[in-house]
Amino acid sequence: MTASPEMAVSSAKHTLDFDALVGLLEQIFVRHGTSADVARTLALNCAGAERDGAHSHGVFRIPGYVSTLNSGWVDGQAVPLVEDVASGFVRVDAGNGFAQPALAAARGLLVEKARNAGIAVLAIRNSHHFAALWPDVEPFAYEGLVALSVVNSMTCVVPHGADRPLFGTNPIAFAAPKADGEPIVFDLATSAIAHGDVQIAARKGERLPEGMGVDSLGQPTTDPKAILEGGALLPFGGHKGSALSMMVELLAAALTGGNFSFEFDWKNHPGAKTPWTGQLLIVIDPSKAAGQGFAERSKELVRQMHSVGLKRLPGDRRHHQRARSQAEGIALDAQTLANLRELAGI
Amino acid sequence: MTASPEMAVSSAKHTLDFDALVGLLEQIFVRHGTSADVARTLALNCAGAERDGAHSHGVFRIPGYVSTLNSGWVDGQAVPLVEDVASGFVRVDAGNGFAQPALAAARGLLVEKARNAGIAVLAIRNSHHFAALWPDVEPFAYEGLVALSVVNSMTCVVPHGADRPLFGTNPIAFAAPKADGEPIVFDLATSAIAHGDVQIAARKGERLPEGMGVDSLGQPTTDPKAILEGGALLPFGGHKGSALSMMVELLAAALTGGNFSFEFDWKNHPGAKTPWTGQLLIVIDPSKAAGQGFAERSKELVRQMHSVGLKRLPGDRRHHQRARSQAEGIALDAQTLANLRELAGI
Repeated sequence: MTASPEMAVSSAKHTLDFDALVGLLEQIFVRHGTSADVARTLALNCAGAERDGAHSHGVFRIPGYVSTLNSGWVDGQAVPLVEDVASGFVRVDAGNGFAQPALAAARGLLVEKARNAGIAVLAIRNSHHFAALWPDVEPFAYEGLVALSVVNSMTCVVPHGADRPLFGTNPIAFAAPKADGEPIVFDLATSAIAHGDVQIAARKGERLPEGMGVDSLGQPTTDPKAILEGGALLPFGGHKGSALSMMVELLAAALTGGNFSFEFDWKNHPGAKTPWTGQLLIVIDPSKAAGQGFAERSKELVRQMHSVGLKRLPGDRRHHQRARSQAEGIALDAQTLANLRELAGI
Repeated sequence: MTASPEMAVSSAKHTLDFDALVGLLEQIFVRHGTSADVARTLALNCAGAERDGAHSHGVFRIPGYVSTLNSGWVDGQAVPLVEDVASGFVRVDAGNGFAQPALAAARGLLVEKARNAGIAVLAIRNSHHFAALWPDVEPFAYEGLVALSVVNSMTCVVPHGADRPLFGTNPIAFAAPKADGEPIVFDLATSAIAHGDVQIAARKGERLPEGMGVDSLGQPTTDPKAILEGGALLPFGGHKGSALSMMVELLAAALTGGNFSFEFDWKNHPGAKTPWTGQLLIVIDPSKAAGQGFAERSKELVRQMHSVGLKRLPGDRRHHQRARSQAEGIALDAQTLANLRELAGI
């Protein structure tokens, strides 16, 4: 789950509807070298995050996308190669392109296999994931399926008990259908804080809570700039979060044929921002389960969670903000909108 | 991963070899009403935990097994019903028996499906899991497979942001093969501490670290007795551990047709100790992955983890203690051994 600080300081706000923002972002992507298909997929993803108030993965990310495309590090024209390996196993070689078009290319086959076999796995390799992970799993839940995904990133997290960074922020995202309402969705970095939130805090000149990271000497710090400039993050939850981060490396890299978070070297591509790794998705069809009332049962779990005093579920804030954006439009401050238009060449 | 405090205070130690301990435990189980098959499966599991130094799930658990069998809460004679649902989906109705015999009954079919489909899921319901979870996943890794399992338990954990307990300790266990050595295995409660470790601390009169639990009034406490007597545990890692615990409820209960941790009521069975819930296992065949060198890659990950200063991996202590027990026998203090013999009627 990502935090949702306000993105910038200007008080002048402009509102765009979703389609207008998607169109603007598509122009930016195409202008910086992606195919129309890739531009469409990335624009929908990024505008969706902005619409849902997940600002650390919304238009805040666009300069990073442009920078990495300009560096030649990622292939914005890549055409994913889908391989049908077994009745429950799909592989995709993303061709040094982005992960989202690879998922889009394999998605139909993955759903078909999950419905037939009861479970199916999608192993994406040779891919760059620069977005939130929940948009990859949430749509499966709207189709009545349960989805779990992991993606590894780039060395910036010190394994619990070690001295120096090795793992990526390595998020885990999960989505499950719920009767009579929005699905249950969460997306959590296995680092103590998401990298995007460190960047936002640095931009705003804010301190982080304790226990989030270390400086370049390996000493604990609350300064986001010290973490970004040669420092590193810590895993969440001590040895347990660290074990889960290790699991993400094994599933997203070793099991896909993608790079571990420490295996790629972008030093010949100044401006490169996107981790060149892998991603795993597991999709389960709960209609194969005994009782078959999965969505009713998840609704009952949520009811019970509220009955013990829980105010807000993971994902609630996003679903609330989505409804608001759909009614009122997506608010961007004037400077941000001007920057986006400049990148789009308009 | 379970902690491994010493079990009792007597200094007199007796050593048994593994087979002798298994035989003793089998006698105890049969004498308290299980079938020979169930006794064998549970004895191997429990003796294996003791052999590996996982004392909170070793013979420490035997009085609990006896108590729950005597209460009539669990059926020690249950014969699991295996259902072949789809090419990647196996269900088992454990018939109000223990989960381990249900896994044993379905294991061959599960492995066959995982090797054919690339991935397979086993959904166990109507089952009681009173053991460590790593013994359920580790054997798959020795066969070259990757395994992930979750099991829900009984209401004793307060969801992050709530006032009162709802979730169980809800562990997640993972195992993956590694070339030229023991597999990578971890088993972590999504509670801040495992229930067995709270019981051991209470027995030894020790305090717990802060942040593990609350008393019966919902106030933070370091007294294990206050947690056990009307109090509750907290999730590990704040909202992230809590989200994972929620996921375990959905996967282990809603997706299997088993009970949520809050759904069963044992008040008519005084002495009942075992949660009557469900368990999910996902098994993946990494030979279907691109590159196919999974075990070599996991070996490389471990090498890199050591190179950044990690001294010990999850599972290392167990594998070390296992080797030691195999060489020297399993040490039990005199009182513990006498108690076990009495329960066995010898």
